[in-house]
Amino acid sequence: MTAELISVGTELLMGNIVNTNARYLSEKCAELGISVYYQVTVGDNPVRLKNTIRTAIGRSDLLILTGGLGPTEDDLTKEMTAEVLERELVEDAHTRERIEEYFRNSNHKVISKNNWKQALIIEGCQVIDNDNGTAPGLYAEASDGVKILLLPGPPNELIPMFEKKVVPLLMEQCGRDGLLYSNMVKICGVGESMVETMIKDLIDNQTNPTIAPYAKTGEVHLRVTARAKDEEEGRRLNAPLLAELQNRFGDNIFTIREEETLEEHVIARLKRLGFTATAAESCTGGLFSGRLINVPGASAVYNCGMITYANEAKEKYLGVNHETLVECGAVSEQTAREMAIGAAKAADADAAVGITGLAGPDGGSAEKPVGTVYVGCYVRGTITVKRYQFKGNREKIRTLSVQNALDLLRRCLIEYEREHGAS
Amino acid sequence: MTAELISVGTELLMGNIVNTNARYLSEKCAELGISVYYQVTVGDNPVRLKNTIRTAIGRSDLLILTGGLGPTEDDLTKEMTAEVLERELVEDAHTRERIEEYFRNSNHKVISKNNWKQALIIEGCQVIDNDNGTAPGLYAEASDGVKILLLPGPPNELIPMFEKKVVPLLMEQCGRDGLLYSNMVKICGVGESMVETMIKDLIDNQTNPTIAPYAKTGEVHLRVTARAKDEEEGRRLNAPLLAELQNRFGDNIFTIREEETLEEHVIARLKRLGFTATAAESCTGGLFSGRLINVPGASAVYNCGMITYANEAKEKYLGVNHETLVECGAVSEQTAREMAIGAAKAADADAAVGITGLAGPDGGSAEKPVGTVYVGCYVRGTITVKRYQFKGNREKIRTLSVQNALDLLRRCLIEYEREHGAS
Repeated sequence: MTAELISVGTELLMGNIVNTNARYLSEKCAELGISVYYQVTVGDNPVRLKNTIRTAIGRSDLLILTGGLGPTEDDLTKEMTAEVLERELVEDAHTRERIEEYFRNSNHKVISKNNWKQALIIEGCQVIDNDNGTAPGLYAEASDGVKILLLPGPPNELIPMFEKKVVPLLMEQCGRDGLLYSNMVKICGVGESMVETMIKDLIDNQTNPTIAPYAKTGEVHLRVTARAKDEEEGRRLNAPLLAELQNRFGDNIFTIREEETLEEHVIARLKRLGFTATAAESCTGGLFSGRLINVPGASAVYNCGMITYANEAKEKYLGVNHETLVECGAVSEQTAREMAIGAAKAADADAAVGITGLAGPDGGSAEKPVGTVYVGCYVRGTITVKRYQFKGNREKIRTLSVQNALDLLRRCLIEYEREHGAS
Repeated sequence: MTAELISVGTELLMGNIVNTNARYLSEKCAELGISVYYQVTVGDNPVRLKNTIRTAIGRSDLLILTGGLGPTEDDLTKEMTAEVLERELVEDAHTRERIEEYFRNSNHKVISKNNWKQALIIEGCQVIDNDNGTAPGLYAEASDGVKILLLPGPPNELIPMFEKKVVPLLMEQCGRDGLLYSNMVKICGVGESMVETMIKDLIDNQTNPTIAPYAKTGEVHLRVTARAKDEEEGRRLNAPLLAELQNRFGDNIFTIREEETLEEHVIARLKRLGFTATAAESCTGGLFSGRLINVPGASAVYNCGMITYANEAKEKYLGVNHETLVECGAVSEQTAREMAIGAAKAADADAAVGITGLAGPDGGSAEKPVGTVYVGCYVRGTITVKRYQFKGNREKIRTLSVQNALDLLRRCLIEYEREHGAS
């Protein structure tokens, strides 16, 4: 089956936003064994949108349209698809009810007239409920059997809908007699090109399973995918390659489960040890704790944390020595060390991270340029401090600081477990 | 002039990378007054690539192709464009020299045979030197006057080439006698469809300037764009529409400057008042402070903050009453109020925000379902508390909490300034 992705939205053509949906959907299609031959972006223009849909119907088996399902007059995807298919738009009672319910539960008590436009569906199509917004997804078939999916554009609506509802629908439509079984080997602390060099022989000789690298911020992911008749066979086919990767990358691999994030992994390790954790953050200003607490159930290991942006706050709340700040500076190994120790003490926690660095754009020096970050990590009395030199703008430096602080905490917990065993 | 962007590369169709070039080029074209009508991504496939080029020549004035100019056999962009134009590929002596020079200056001393492929150009085209790689850009014209640009795919080669060499070339080709001048009116606290309803008449009657809405998480942006002969005329043309939007949306507008974010605006307001600010965060776990501190120079107004995830931390660090937590609950108006007051006191700050809510996925009740969030805002002794009901997953609820807490702080600062004036 070949697919064509059609992204609808003048904001994409104006360059206001990056089309991350096209990447996401392409990756998902690849996993499903569907070949994407074209990605097309077109504006909210009736003629060009209809022509794009017609062209796609003529050359692809599956069209996935995203965007243009909103309540405004600009939103034309549903209307133009219906015109091309020569079908009517009809109100769907079920969707109307869901929209009413959505507004009942939200702050916007007044439903504007425009919103009822979202209850209109293409005659004879299948409705895909949207659990995170008011635009339902639609699945229709053209008379010649071409399959057409209309999905909402906002990623926080699109992605959950795709994972929960569209994947099963497409698998059924593919009539697959087997499945794709995949693991995601997630690596921290090794750069993209080094990873690629280390697996070049595996990539060159791949058949089943296949292996494909994806660079993420501060992580490299390797997707290992087997074509198998069932999950059990998939697991069996993937196992030798996973073992080989484990040999090559060791502790740099933190998980082989696609759904597990680094912060989830760290929370799970802390739970297994029966540890509590805290953080004292300077340049990251709360983003480390914010990311950790995004894990449901983080309350079991995390009670409180400090954002000590000013030097006085580092002294007052963490007991960092005044002399340390004066002699070594706020961005120094010694300050990071004292921040971690002080945070653990203040929060009475088993593990603590202290982050201090220069996120820029100003404030760098020859010795400590912008991007210099120190992370101190305390685990039951043992302290590790690491210096990093990141490149990029303020946001990137802060994001990489959080990422590497999580990884450092993970490695320190591994060390602790090796020495003491889990509790 | 209308443009069509063609991105060539199977790695885009596989979802390995995000197409940031398309966004970049679209934005640049908009700035140049060139309308991008289509973005197309196609793989390194001869037939589909040629068809894509032919279709584009038939409907657009300018084609910008990126990618597929590398030295490998997969790289086909130049070859297929030449076939469509019915021209030969010929070696360009100047480019051959540049390639030799590039390798002399790099670590790779051996020039592989493939590299000479990059010295081939389309007969009769203009060569655009690449200062950061070995693939030159090419500019050709089809017999019917359609302009075709072939540019390298790596952003670190594409962007400098575009800024330095392609922009002047296009400006000359456009024979421009004017520019696009735009403001971005950013609105908080009014939903997308409500905004759309409130400006329907303006959109229906738009000529010059035009007005276009963009929905963001917790914000709606309106781009107001004038076609003008210079910036001064652009400003003058936009002024009446900006004044009308100010009339209609009042305090819901927080800026008309594209580059200003909500957090930057809040920091600027705090600075103007000479205020310091802090936050006590529960469900957002540091993300509020993290976002505020992403603004360069935030240290002038923000010294420290607290993440009080556990009830004990709320008592210990913020002085929230034990009875309040027992009787009203951790997620309550009273707790948010006491958190804000306690945070201001602990940090000795002029302004403070307290955020407590249920981000889920568990822990909701009929009275307080998941998504219930209270934000308390303290400004020099005056306390405002607001209850919100958000929808979405844990991450979305937390992001919306941060967004609305920033907006509440902004509104409370406006109130303060109205009553007391700026310091």
